Amino acid sequence: MFLEKLIAAQRQNRSWLCVGLDPVGDRLPPSVRRQEAPLFAFLKAIVDATADLVCAYKPNLGFFLAEGTAGMEALRRIIRYIPDPIPVILDGKFGDIAHTAAAYARGAFETLGADAVTLSPYVGSEAVRPFLAYPDRAVFVLARTSNPGAGEFQDLAGSPAGEDGPPVPLFLQVARQAVRWAAEGPGTCGLVVGATHPADLARLRQIAPTLPFLIPGVGAQGGDLEATVRFGPTHEGIGPIVNVSRAVLYASTGEDFARAARTVAEGLRATIASLQGPA
Amino acid sequence: MFLEKLIAAQRQNRSWLCVGLDPVGDRLPPSVRRQEAPLFAFLKAIVDATADLVCAYKPNLGFFLAEGTAGMEALRRIIRYIPDPIPVILDGKFGDIAHTAAAYARGAFETLGADAVTLSPYVGSEAVRPFLAYPDRAVFVLARTSNPGAGEFQDLAGSPAGEDGPPVPLFLQVARQAVRWAAEGPGTCGLVVGATHPADLARLRQIAPTLPFLIPGVGAQGGDLEATVRFGPTHEGIGPIVNVSRAVLYASTGEDFARAARTVAEGLRATIASLQGPA
Repeated sequence: MFLEKLIAAQRQNRSWLCVGLDPVGDRLPPSVRRQEAPLFAFLKAIVDATADLVCAYKPNLGFFLAEGTAGMEALRRIIRYIPDPIPVILDGKFGDIAHTAAAYARGAFETLGADAVTLSPYVGSEAVRPFLAYPDRAVFVLARTSNPGAGEFQDLAGSPAGEDGPPVPLFLQVARQAVRWAAEGPGTCGLVVGATHPADLARLRQIAPTLPFLIPGVGAQGGDLEATVRFGPTHEGIGPIVNVSRAVLYASTGEDFARAARTVAEGLRATIASLQGPA
Repeated sequence: MFLEKLIAAQRQNRSWLCVGLDPVGDRLPPSVRRQEAPLFAFLKAIVDATADLVCAYKPNLGFFLAEGTAGMEALRRIIRYIPDPIPVILDGKFGDIAHTAAAYARGAFETLGADAVTLSPYVGSEAVRPFLAYPDRAVFVLARTSNPGAGEFQDLAGSPAGEDGPPVPLFLQVARQAVRWAAEGPGTCGLVVGATHPADLARLRQIAPTLPFLIPGVGAQGGDLEATVRFGPTHEGIGPIVNVSRAVLYASTGEDFARAARTVAEGLRATIASLQGPA
């Protein structure tokens, strides 16, 4: 079960930190570039340096696609390499009609072996259900994304179908629907909520008290770690998955990149712990 | 330029038909499965059988991901194999924050060499612009998807930011914004509009008179070909890209699959032409 893995990883490593695995060929240190499979070598070194500090890893499909065949091979290998119980969230923001969504689910869960994926809600429930059909996996549906202009469409407020009440913004309607998807299951349904929009984090936690949150936007994007720690946990106490990518991966572009990544990850874990207060 | 390629392909083949390349390993005929690279062999046979009948090909990333390393290799090879001037639309429904969108754009346009991609608008303009930065490529943004429940979020109607007028549904607000993206360029911006929602096709053509339309939902999904032909073309007369996947690819599951695909594609092209009336 996804949540069991997540909880085990959070307990074992006393961490809510997730490291985003977004490799860029041009940014790899020279000694790594000389290896036979540089992308995998880089990510393996990052995982080796941080596997006792994180509760999840999140490879983003875009960076692997950009690197072509070598990238996709690195993605396949690093997912297999990540040790139990740490879950792997394949960040693909998939969102396609049912027949195609089923193919993406096969690709992510069966072929690649990811524990979870991110999904985009635009297409509707039909894009989500084929993923939720896997009882031991999870989906994180985009509610509030971490980009500065996230509100462009997400803030559009209208009355939900069949309701008369006041207008509700799209991102909250997605969250309401996600609560229903979570109840349907059998897979686990969570939300993606950017740390860069702390007020929305609070509103989303209120609407979806039991859904696990994947929270990007900390680190290079400057998200609010205090709000993340305050509103991130579910009402049952499952911690958020707080993702940091660039700030860890490229903490140093020199030969000490793995040690530097570990230092930054340790610092982030400690900062999160200090904000949690006494356990 | 994308539109020049599209127009050349539409003229050369007198066709608005696009064949969706969605290979499923289990559905390949026995003789194809025995080949060294069955997925590529299958798609090559489909392209050989239809390249004089179509205006575009549309491989959907999900089906290639599902087939693992062999799938991604088949995707890479088939994009290179498709002959000029026929454009290739990589259907990935990408939608991520700017830094990551740039990685997807590198992957789709530079690494794989696609002429166009499909995009999901949920994240906002920041997800679109990195793709539009390629002057000779195109993006097709999801407005109205072809699934039965497309309206779940797409119909949410609210007042656009800074406007007082009557509420406008999300999918029309996306189309309005796409008109602005098209004006910004330098790449080409079009819309994805399902043939299964003919009334919306008409409304979208009114809002976006000059944007090229990619129209899925014909064939297995039962979309309206008459509305497609009526509202599909831009006001300057650029024809829509009318996608059919399963009905062509799996016209026969036997050894005559390529010939059967050609027969179905010929029939679809002729039906579209007959609806166009005398040229």
